[in-house]
Amino acid sequence: MKLASLSDYLLLRIERGAQKNAPAKAGKTFAHGSAAAKTAARAPRMPVNRQIYQLIREAILAQTLPAGLQLPSSRDLAAELGMSRNTVTYAYEQLLAEGYLESRTGAGTFVADTEPDQIPETVERSEPLTDPSGKSELSARGAMLTRQAGVGERQWGAFMPGVPDVTCVPHKVWSRLQNKHWRRANSDLLTYGPGAGYAPLREAVAEYLRVARSVNCNASQVLITTGIHQSIDIVVKLLGEHGDSAWVEDPCYWGTRSVLNSLGIQSVPITVDQEGMRMRLANLRRPPRFICTTPSHQYPLGMVMSLSRRRMLLEYAAAHKVWIIEDDYDSEFRYGGRPLASLQGMDTHDRVLYMGTFSKIMFPGLRIGFLVVPESLATAFSTGIAELYRNGQVFLQATLADFMGEGHFASHIRKMRVLYAERLQLLQQSIDRHFGEKMTITGGEAGLHLVLGLPPECDDVAICEEALRAGIIVRPLSRYYMHVRSARRGLLLGYASVPNAEIASSFDKLAAVIKRHLPG
Amino acid sequence: MKLASLSDYLLLRIERGAQKNAPAKAGKTFAHGSAAAKTAARAPRMPVNRQIYQLIREAILAQTLPAGLQLPSSRDLAAELGMSRNTVTYAYEQLLAEGYLESRTGAGTFVADTEPDQIPETVERSEPLTDPSGKSELSARGAMLTRQAGVGERQWGAFMPGVPDVTCVPHKVWSRLQNKHWRRANSDLLTYGPGAGYAPLREAVAEYLRVARSVNCNASQVLITTGIHQSIDIVVKLLGEHGDSAWVEDPCYWGTRSVLNSLGIQSVPITVDQEGMRMRLANLRRPPRFICTTPSHQYPLGMVMSLSRRRMLLEYAAAHKVWIIEDDYDSEFRYGGRPLASLQGMDTHDRVLYMGTFSKIMFPGLRIGFLVVPESLATAFSTGIAELYRNGQVFLQATLADFMGEGHFASHIRKMRVLYAERLQLLQQSIDRHFGEKMTITGGEAGLHLVLGLPPECDDVAICEEALRAGIIVRPLSRYYMHVRSARRGLLLGYASVPNAEIASSFDKLAAVIKRHLPG
Repeated sequence: MKLASLSDYLLLRIERGAQKNAPAKAGKTFAHGSAAAKTAARAPRMPVNRQIYQLIREAILAQTLPAGLQLPSSRDLAAELGMSRNTVTYAYEQLLAEGYLESRTGAGTFVADTEPDQIPETVERSEPLTDPSGKSELSARGAMLTRQAGVGERQWGAFMPGVPDVTCVPHKVWSRLQNKHWRRANSDLLTYGPGAGYAPLREAVAEYLRVARSVNCNASQVLITTGIHQSIDIVVKLLGEHGDSAWVEDPCYWGTRSVLNSLGIQSVPITVDQEGMRMRLANLRRPPRFICTTPSHQYPLGMVMSLSRRRMLLEYAAAHKVWIIEDDYDSEFRYGGRPLASLQGMDTHDRVLYMGTFSKIMFPGLRIGFLVVPESLATAFSTGIAELYRNGQVFLQATLADFMGEGHFASHIRKMRVLYAERLQLLQQSIDRHFGEKMTITGGEAGLHLVLGLPPECDDVAICEEALRAGIIVRPLSRYYMHVRSARRGLLLGYASVPNAEIASSFDKLAAVIKRHLPG
Repeated sequence: MKLASLSDYLLLRIERGAQKNAPAKAGKTFAHGSAAAKTAARAPRMPVNRQIYQLIREAILAQTLPAGLQLPSSRDLAAELGMSRNTVTYAYEQLLAEGYLESRTGAGTFVADTEPDQIPETVERSEPLTDPSGKSELSARGAMLTRQAGVGERQWGAFMPGVPDVTCVPHKVWSRLQNKHWRRANSDLLTYGPGAGYAPLREAVAEYLRVARSVNCNASQVLITTGIHQSIDIVVKLLGEHGDSAWVEDPCYWGTRSVLNSLGIQSVPITVDQEGMRMRLANLRRPPRFICTTPSHQYPLGMVMSLSRRRMLLEYAAAHKVWIIEDDYDSEFRYGGRPLASLQGMDTHDRVLYMGTFSKIMFPGLRIGFLVVPESLATAFSTGIAELYRNGQVFLQATLADFMGEGHFASHIRKMRVLYAERLQLLQQSIDRHFGEKMTITGGEAGLHLVLGLPPECDDVAICEEALRAGIIVRPLSRYYMHVRSARRGLLLGYASVPNAEIASSFDKLAAVIKRHLPG
């Protein structure tokens, strides 16, 4: 392309609407008569210098302007186009910066496309995938993960399990504390955070866990994470290898299994009975790397792990250097007596990694959780968290630390415990009214949900799908099992986020669906 | 332990300070004469019912109260202790709930320790680790990760690279927008977020990337993450397998390598020259799963990838089904012309995963980044993010979306670009004043840092350590290389977060250290 043809090409393609002296300004909705003005008024045009840049770039990409070609000087091109030299200079400079052009001192400006590196014909692995849907482009673990995903589409409404009533968060207090930190615009609060988290929050969490959960720790052992998922991720990455195994309760929280799978950890399902995890001899003969457990409130069934099982797990873990991952996700809400003591508090061999979250006490969107590790591992975990996640949001951590320090946290828990106990009772009454003694309720002593048992011939998945169409979210118990054959049927009903007045009417809708599925 | 001895044991151990009728209340700082009162005044005592609970629990754990032992009725024990029955009932109920006691109807209350499950003597793997320091308890990848950690202890101060000036965030505007959402206390903003992120933010990001970075995308392809680290994590988990390899630029950002390592991806270092990544034939013969690159502004050296290399990478990726991970971390700040067009915008085969972050534009503690994926993968990525991280903080995403929508984002970028250009110039002047032409400066055309080249015989790590003792944070260039032998020596100097007035005096301190290390 010669000088003349380059300027012809550009003149032909440049749209003039946005030039400063054009008759109608971009953005105005009325026209002034001429067709050009109407066009210009319709859509804002790109500035001419930007258009020249884009047109030359396209020509280089299409190799209409081939590698090595000399371009006219900006002065010459500007003259040809009848534009100011600045307009052309802008485009050239941008193209030079992006490497499309190169400037050789004293010689001029050239299309900069250097000789491409040679691509060899033979390569070791070359099995191009053919499915254009993109599905088969996922890796094996990616495909498994998305296929078996447990996360739901909707996260709010009756009877979404595991969600607290976020509308009760004392938002005035929270905003006040938040604004206090924002006004100071402290750089420590806005830049990358320390790996272990904001020190005053770690102190507050340690104090809380010692008193409320009998966790045996000091602040140096407490690490702030974004929640249970990240806590498991860092534990596995620092203490486990790809190919290790983990015992998980069957049923268990889907998130635990998904995070383990995504890291190449094989989940070994362990049956749960009234005392909690029940290991078989075949299990015990093959110590895993990790044991994932919810001893205070089995998820989702709700039983408390017995003392003998706790002792046995701790002894076994100490003898075989197994790590116990204790997920204590919602024990704050116990409707008789105080929250239960943690397994970690009984551990004398530093084998327990204790984790919890503020999602259930405060609100899930906060995304602040904590991990308590043995003292000897605290530095490694702090480094690992900083290195892998570069956590931040220290301003939120500072707000939460103040919220705890000023006593709002304890009173929020007390307030919510009373409210959730009311809602639990309302739900139990609704269940009683519809089904009497016919159905078993489990897990209602604590937490944010209960499990309504169904006869084994009921299809709990179908009930949930039908309920969703009626506007009710429930989760099928059978889906929480790895051993699908031995899965019990039932429904997880979250009551915490449902306003008192809606519980009965929502359950009426659900009951109608259930009744259609009951045998006989 | 018989009835009498249990009550003796308890009476001996219970501390009376906190009883309601005790002479001094817990928490008061003055004493009333008696020694008991003084003790009580010093530390708040636990309520007596809680003490009884703990003492019995300890006795059960120590097997002083053995499994199967019948406990006195709460009435009898209360009488023996001279306390109200409620006090004892509270302790019993808590112990029952925690599984330490069990109640057999009509028979009474027993220590509930069931027969422990038998632990087999022989197990398949049993190599107890012996190092009590905890270090050797880390897995191989955990040990590597913490040993090679690139993250620094300090995250703020002259000349910390990669950190913007967070004190310039328009915090009044931000607080106003934030408070608006808090006042509404919308449950959608406070509960778990949708996997792909808050829809209006995805729209705003797509619009911004189309215009500013020539990214070819619509909002459905944009996924909100917590930053580059999480973006790489999800890409590798969904599209890669353990044992795959990734080409990384040498030198490169430490975080990229650490995240890859933690997921079992082998990093293959690729030399960087003036045109960007320079693959050798031996590399090209073995296609990796991923190519990690920073084409707009190589990190940390700062060059722009040439057009021929871009073309070659895209062709190669299409031919061999390789995924290109384009990390576009700070191109907004380009001090001549506009930001550069992205590699993604040139890709016609859907092989580029484009990622960026708000850390450099807004503030690192925000922890919001984005990932643009091919349309066919958008649903899988949205599911994967929800499943693996349960991201939330929709209230922050909503605040940011408003911030962008109201135009504050664009004007903040413009304002900061001017400020950073000033600081860059001040730093360059300081370098000139001390070293004149003797030292090369690279990467100063864009971003938040430049690289000051040092003669090969200089120990850049030692300079950084000495500088830190003088209160100056700099990073050694050689540490960013995998091939340590071919590593160039130099210093990464971040200027963006240093107030104009401090640049010269801070560099004076650094120059004094450098001069001590220069040869001859």
